[in-house]
Amino acid sequence: MARRSAFFISDRTGITSESMGEALLDQFEGVNFKRATYPFIDTPEKARAMVQIINAAAADSGLRPLVFTSIINDEIRSIIKNCDGLHLSFFDAFLGTIERELGLTARHSVGRTHGIGDTQRYDARMEAVNFSLNHDDGISGKDLKDADVILMGVSRSGKTPTCLYLALQYGIRAANYPLTPDDLESSDLPRMVKPYKHKLYGLTILPERLQAIRHERRPDSTYSQLNTCRREVSDAQAMFRAHGIPFTNTTDKSVEELAVSIMQACQLKRRF
Amino acid sequence: MARRSAFFISDRTGITSESMGEALLDQFEGVNFKRATYPFIDTPEKARAMVQIINAAAADSGLRPLVFTSIINDEIRSIIKNCDGLHLSFFDAFLGTIERELGLTARHSVGRTHGIGDTQRYDARMEAVNFSLNHDDGISGKDLKDADVILMGVSRSGKTPTCLYLALQYGIRAANYPLTPDDLESSDLPRMVKPYKHKLYGLTILPERLQAIRHERRPDSTYSQLNTCRREVSDAQAMFRAHGIPFTNTTDKSVEELAVSIMQACQLKRRF
Repeated sequence: MARRSAFFISDRTGITSESMGEALLDQFEGVNFKRATYPFIDTPEKARAMVQIINAAAADSGLRPLVFTSIINDEIRSIIKNCDGLHLSFFDAFLGTIERELGLTARHSVGRTHGIGDTQRYDARMEAVNFSLNHDDGISGKDLKDADVILMGVSRSGKTPTCLYLALQYGIRAANYPLTPDDLESSDLPRMVKPYKHKLYGLTILPERLQAIRHERRPDSTYSQLNTCRREVSDAQAMFRAHGIPFTNTTDKSVEELAVSIMQACQLKRRF
Repeated sequence: MARRSAFFISDRTGITSESMGEALLDQFEGVNFKRATYPFIDTPEKARAMVQIINAAAADSGLRPLVFTSIINDEIRSIIKNCDGLHLSFFDAFLGTIERELGLTARHSVGRTHGIGDTQRYDARMEAVNFSLNHDDGISGKDLKDADVILMGVSRSGKTPTCLYLALQYGIRAANYPLTPDDLESSDLPRMVKPYKHKLYGLTILPERLQAIRHERRPDSTYSQLNTCRREVSDAQAMFRAHGIPFTNTTDKSVEELAVSIMQACQLKRRF
């Protein structure tokens, strides 16, 4: 059966038009769209080539493509508008309304100032990423006092990707501390993190899911046995509860959801 | 002077409504908005509390707030719509048009299936993040054959954050290789990466910017002298050119732009 195409087109990275388009397509379960992202469509020539691609997809499938665009330049956008697809233009939908509300004319060009603000943003990210890498898996307790948050959980509960996402997306300095079987035998908090109790946030996970992840890594080990996973998870949760440490279950959450939940729970603000 | 508020509100993480809103606000240079993001507004109670916050901001400033929402539930959205702000609703703008085009009714509820697809997505990310961490700064050449791309550049040219972003955002297995002064003395490619020439992508940077970054890390060292930076950058670019390795200058680019440019240049596809 012919599939309808969905195009995500942008004069920059396409990340916004992609996430906007995907959120809408996600509302139509069971429809299998043929997706394609085209970033950096920032000249009339590229826009005209784009129209040919869209028109070919329309002709091939006999179905009008959905064309999600995030293109600020009026000329480029108007070229795309003449394609044989349904043009869903992010800037057309909102920019005029905001201009009228503010009583101002928008600049209608890609923001490429790349001034001090961008350098600061880059530096904040770099610093946070380096911080997270240096504090991955409790490697060093030396600078935990500079951490914005310390994620704590058993091995493979999702700490590292969450820390890195917090660093890259929000410039948050996130350290992580892996709870070892030794740590879990004690009812006390591990010595290294104890002075920073107010920065701790716990991650827990469904033992069955943990077992599957650990099995991938070290099959047929004590580490990956379901009983081990059950005991570690249960001990970790008991520790979180005993010390009043907020925690969340990572099993059904995306890295994005985890990061935002942690920022909300710990009242963290983005650093850029 | 009173500042106008801009709210980014979502029933999920708020990442889409934030990037959508920021792209629009970025079109009005010189206007200093008071920004606030509210994720997980997913019940009528939370929506009503939200309206009170918006109305208070409107009353305090005497300026109608801009309210960017990405809320799929019709009831929750209609509560927000009654606030004293200008409601810029992502789903209202597009969902009806798409429903008519497809001849289908959207599900109008948050997608929380978290089935096999989500687990696969998580696994792909995890695997890519672990891969990048294991191959950060050329630590191991053992599995470079499994890399989707190998970023090459002098120390502090932006390799690590870009690798991690590619892993987290697209599940791309990105390794990186730091060009040392020893590597740069030779006109040949470094031995470790030579067999994988077709996977190499070079990063270069303005020597002045490199100097500033290195100075933060190791002030008053040979490493951070402008002359050292100039020579290393020039040698690295000569190496890229001599071997026909595509490369880009990271100085004025965000991590997002770098990641997307590299995917385009190397024809990489997201892994989830």
